[in-house]
Amino acid sequence: MSKIAYVNGRYLRQPEASVNIEDRGYQFGDGIYEVVHLYDGRYVDEELHLARLERSLREIRLPMPMSRAALRLVLREVARRNRVTEGLLYMQVTRGVARRDHPFPARPVPPALVVTVKRVPPYPTDVDKWQASAITLPDLRWARRDIKSVNLLPNCLARQAAREQGAIEAVLYDEATGIVNEGAATTFWIVDEQGAIRTRYLDQVILPGCTRAALMAELRAEGIAFDERPYTVEELRMAREAFLTSATSFVRPITKIDGAPVGDGKVGPVVRRLFDIFARHVKGDIRNAA
Amino acid sequence: MSKIAYVNGRYLRQPEASVNIEDRGYQFGDGIYEVVHLYDGRYVDEELHLARLERSLREIRLPMPMSRAALRLVLREVARRNRVTEGLLYMQVTRGVARRDHPFPARPVPPALVVTVKRVPPYPTDVDKWQASAITLPDLRWARRDIKSVNLLPNCLARQAAREQGAIEAVLYDEATGIVNEGAATTFWIVDEQGAIRTRYLDQVILPGCTRAALMAELRAEGIAFDERPYTVEELRMAREAFLTSATSFVRPITKIDGAPVGDGKVGPVVRRLFDIFARHVKGDIRNAA
Repeated sequence: MSKIAYVNGRYLRQPEASVNIEDRGYQFGDGIYEVVHLYDGRYVDEELHLARLERSLREIRLPMPMSRAALRLVLREVARRNRVTEGLLYMQVTRGVARRDHPFPARPVPPALVVTVKRVPPYPTDVDKWQASAITLPDLRWARRDIKSVNLLPNCLARQAAREQGAIEAVLYDEATGIVNEGAATTFWIVDEQGAIRTRYLDQVILPGCTRAALMAELRAEGIAFDERPYTVEELRMAREAFLTSATSFVRPITKIDGAPVGDGKVGPVVRRLFDIFARHVKGDIRNAA
Repeated sequence: MSKIAYVNGRYLRQPEASVNIEDRGYQFGDGIYEVVHLYDGRYVDEELHLARLERSLREIRLPMPMSRAALRLVLREVARRNRVTEGLLYMQVTRGVARRDHPFPARPVPPALVVTVKRVPPYPTDVDKWQASAITLPDLRWARRDIKSVNLLPNCLARQAAREQGAIEAVLYDEATGIVNEGAATTFWIVDEQGAIRTRYLDQVILPGCTRAALMAELRAEGIAFDERPYTVEELRMAREAFLTSATSFVRPITKIDGAPVGDGKVGPVVRRLFDIFARHVKGDIRNAA
């Protein structure tokens, strides 16, 4: 756990870091969050995450708890006070404390802000050691998955199901069409039978991944083609390679789906290359991911 | 707000009633809740609510924080300490405090339990003063609405939209079929053009309402027919009467939908009768709602 957490203007030791039981985040999941990787003392793709935070908040009509500039300072101060240079930052904004009632508080209350950071093992340099398994599950989540809300119960249940099958992620698909949406907390990609790098286009069905956007910017710069074209679970099973992206995992090879190998079951050449490209990105050779 | 809240074994003054920021209820909405009406010092349909709590917890594989008998004592103690005899009880069980990670905590932690009670105005005796308006909205919620989880952001957004249109509830319908599911936090009923009392059958699409079950038991006892047959938004617009049920509202006439009158726009004879029947139920003439 985080040793020092920022909670509504104060830096508190983790065991004392608490919120009122009538915080709407606790009673309604009425809040937004972001996770940002801290690498070598620097937040990776920080502006993408801050922009997405602002977008999610706007979508549920919740104001920023402070300016983006002030928030940046809090993020740095949390890292500094915890003496963490390699970790995961977590920030959460909720609609504050009010007597329980579904609509927004009639008399506006200040939004609540919680920021923590926790140490994580160093980013792996060996892509073969980074490979993992996934399972597939129907996507049971609500219709606005483009909003990064803390309504994460379906995601938790899916991840738990994955863990119980020795996998690190559940790939969620639309039950009516069989189309793969995304992972429970990651963007999901394949290299299809024809060798095309594919991931689903953005709309309200999936989260606009920051690592997805950053990787796409790198791919464009490298002249590597990719296709924002959805694929089905069947196509996933026939894929040459598969991988996921997220702020936690960066580029992670998935070499087994539902217990069966993807392609030859080893880390493929495309994922290997993308892993290297993104490793450079993380290490600071950052292109503008506009 | 509640003056005294029960929080994980302690009775605390509301401003001091808090939970750790890493309570999974706060970060994931990984929890279940119930609202029970306290009428004249007695919890209405208490056993139905406790049974549903246990069912919801089972569905997300979360143990009861204590036995049902012990929980009953806590509910009474919260009412007693707050000197409330007419109010709304709120209880919430979450998967406890653990370092943030989607799957269930690898090393089990005790579930968290929060119980509050707040005063509400006395249950109205005049049904005409109890009539209200509703709006219709597409149902954006997740696929397991039979689980009473605290993932309530879509419900909050729907209720806020209703309030902004002078309505107390949003009637949520399936966008593909036009079928009415339920209200954002209520069961929704109509008296159709042929005079049939109708509400949707139970499955994973809607919450198994406790007030719904209690009213059905009363209707059976009175020999009043009803039909668990879904109806569309179009049928709702053509209905003679409409009403909702919930632990908060009991039987409440809805005389306007999306700004247009239901039937003649007045409280109809069927809803009037059901209101009276349920008022007797609330006042203690309780039948077994098995």
